[in-house]
Amino acid sequence: MTTADDFAASIWKDIERIRAEAPLVHNITNYVVMNTTANALLALGASPVMAHAPEEVEEMAGLARALVLNIGTLSAHWVESMVKAGRAANAKGIPVILDPVGAGATRFRTDTAERLLRAAPPAIVRGNASEIRALYHGERGTRGVDSARTSEEAVEAAQALSRQSGCAAIVSGAVDIVTGGGRIIRIANGHPMMTRVTGLGCTASAITGAFAAVNGSPVLAAAHAMAVMGIAGEIAAERSPGPGSFQVNFLDALYQLRESDICARLKMEER
Amino acid sequence: MTTADDFAASIWKDIERIRAEAPLVHNITNYVVMNTTANALLALGASPVMAHAPEEVEEMAGLARALVLNIGTLSAHWVESMVKAGRAANAKGIPVILDPVGAGATRFRTDTAERLLRAAPPAIVRGNASEIRALYHGERGTRGVDSARTSEEAVEAAQALSRQSGCAAIVSGAVDIVTGGGRIIRIANGHPMMTRVTGLGCTASAITGAFAAVNGSPVLAAAHAMAVMGIAGEIAAERSPGPGSFQVNFLDALYQLRESDICARLKMEER
Amino acid sequence: MTTADDFAASIWKDIERIRAEAPLVHNITNYVVMNTTANALLALGASPVMAHAPEEVEEMAGLARALVLNIGTLSAHWVESMVKAGRAANAKGIPVILDPVGAGATRFRTDTAERLLRAAPPAIVRGNASEIRALYHGERGTRGVDSARTSEEAVEAAQALSRQSGCAAIVSGAVDIVTGGGRIIRIANGHPMMTRVTGLGCTASAITGAFAAVNGSPVLAAAHAMAVMGIAGEIAAERSPGPGSFQVNFLDALYQLRESDICARLKMEER
Repeated sequence: MTTADDFAASIWKDIERIRAEAPLVHNITNYVVMNTTANALLALGASPVMAHAPEEVEEMAGLARALVLNIGTLSAHWVESMVKAGRAANAKGIPVILDPVGAGATRFRTDTAERLLRAAPPAIVRGNASEIRALYHGERGTRGVDSARTSEEAVEAAQALSRQSGCAAIVSGAVDIVTGGGRIIRIANGHPMMTRVTGLGCTASAITGAFAAVNGSPVLAAAHAMAVMGIAGEIAAERSPGPGSFQVNFLDALYQLRESDICARLKMEER
Repeated sequence: MTTADDFAASIWKDIERIRAEAPLVHNITNYVVMNTTANALLALGASPVMAHAPEEVEEMAGLARALVLNIGTLSAHWVESMVKAGRAANAKGIPVILDPVGAGATRFRTDTAERLLRAAPPAIVRGNASEIRALYHGERGTRGVDSARTSEEAVEAAQALSRQSGCAAIVSGAVDIVTGGGRIIRIANGHPMMTRVTGLGCTASAITGAFAAVNGSPVLAAAHAMAVMGIAGEIAAERSPGPGSFQVNFLDALYQLRESDICARLKMEER
Repeated sequence: MTTADDFAASIWKDIERIRAEAPLVHNITNYVVMNTTANALLALGASPVMAHAPEEVEEMAGLARALVLNIGTLSAHWVESMVKAGRAANAKGIPVILDPVGAGATRFRTDTAERLLRAAPPAIVRGNASEIRALYHGERGTRGVDSARTSEEAVEAAQALSRQSGCAAIVSGAVDIVTGGGRIIRIANGHPMMTRVTGLGCTASAITGAFAAVNGSPVLAAAHAMAVMGIAGEIAAERSPGPGSFQVNFLDALYQLRESDICARLKMEER
């Protein structure tokens, strides 16, 4: 059982390491968010690289300290590269973060997410409630990439996924739930305006890669990333009349984030 | 013959429906604008999804309430997926919006746009004057994606396209012209700074998808979308020293748009 | 030997031509930066077009006044299109700008950059120190796309590359170094915050295309572009608490750039 103060100190330690070490995070992600996730990683202090060609993904994963796989605009060729890169990451011992965007919405996405889970076991899976449930039950019926279900409805699915696949699982929502190694951590930071900006879920997965690069505990890396997303999101939303300015202020907030912001704002609890 | 007040009321009704229902709009669009069009749809209140793999486009179109096809960075494989998705949308009875980016500039783009017109008849086509003329005459000579021709020079082409293909046709320009069902509506909103931001034409097509999702009249959905683009553009330009801040303010303006903005600013007439 | 005042006058003349003529710049570039480089070209006054399909790249290059090839998210098919487009540009006599993103990081990138150098000789190559050294020595060991080496460490490599390939070569860094035709020009404009925004190197390459479209001297076009990047970057950074607002202010600064900004800020010297 960890207190919020302990969590805040632990988050700050990771941020300082990211800023000092600028870990290279290799992303094979979707076209919609490549620019914004690269910028979020840079604003946080990490070094992003995007590379998807089968000729180079293993070599690039070999240079990186984390690999983020995101199926948001998947196609068959890209999936093959994800498998290749994922296996290289597994072999090298760097964490794989899987974002199963739209699992449950189409069979292709559900099948691909399940294939990636098996072929290149991730350290961390991050999705919304529908996506996490789809991976657990094979349940169908996500509505595109924005489901209305609350994260609490996917707690059991996340716990089962965590046990079965030996990974930490994040269910994003108004309250983010992180499970893994028998722990359940809830983070209640964030702001409703975040649902009106594309790719913030993907951004959460990307910066989870940065935290996993510097923190050997997948469940803690995942929880730290979600807390930082939520806190930077709150700071940004307070300054933003709408989702356009939110995006600008979010990157600035990530860049400027101080330990006192985290201590003052963190709403994280384990039970 | 509809008055500007009637138009304003009708636009507002659509916006309220979009905000309440958050219709899923399936986009197969170009790499340049995926992020910005997704964000515009979200700011307006709709739910975007991007999916182009042949394995899933029919299933995804089946979940959506409108399909937007945009050939801005086309390639052969993507075109096949556009045809597949378009046919699924036609079969399901949801509106297809076609943005023939660069038709007239290269033979591949002109041929592809004509193929899509035949293979998956759209409810609405939106282009600039050169693009619309290219579809009508098979005329060559667009200069990339930003032609200097005024929209008035493409009125006849738009009317013929509308009659021949049974669709509404939008000619974007300083004055936007919308034709369909024998009607001609002109919208004089907008701002010159909009020509210095990439992808606002594509954004117009994307949000046309949101309006078509909630309004059964293609010509009205098209006109409403262009009016909202122009009005949000004016509001944004007034707050923006340049095209960088314009983009931020444009999304904020879409998000904050009020009925009174539309009533006060709308410059729409039918004759 | 050119004085800073001469340089400033010469830069301004190019900007006026770009704004007056809006040269079409054909980009085959990476997914991460397509949007931001198109917007930078538009803010500067040029006309960007992105097109990569083998069916149309030659025709599109034939419409353009410069071609920018950027291998940031390369794949085999795209490389073939780059070769085709590059040859068409060579045949037509328009300048090719090559951005060998990540050369030295993976063998595929190094080999591809070397292939493009031979198959479609560029007028200008722009990279960071590691990338330029990789092209010269075939040296391995770039760390993704952000190397820590100073540009001075790549001066010899740039000079050799320039001689061997008959191109101008830009080494980007805190000080940008431009070589070509036996000249060496250094530009000390810019701001450290620019390293926390993705794709500004790619943006430099893109606007180099705009300058090369209006200036027949590759080495001057290259130096002018780097000076404008640095000066707009300084203006933006002074107004920006972080990299989010920097991006907005950077586009605004490009759009608003005045001759007096260049005269007051330019730190360019030849020796």
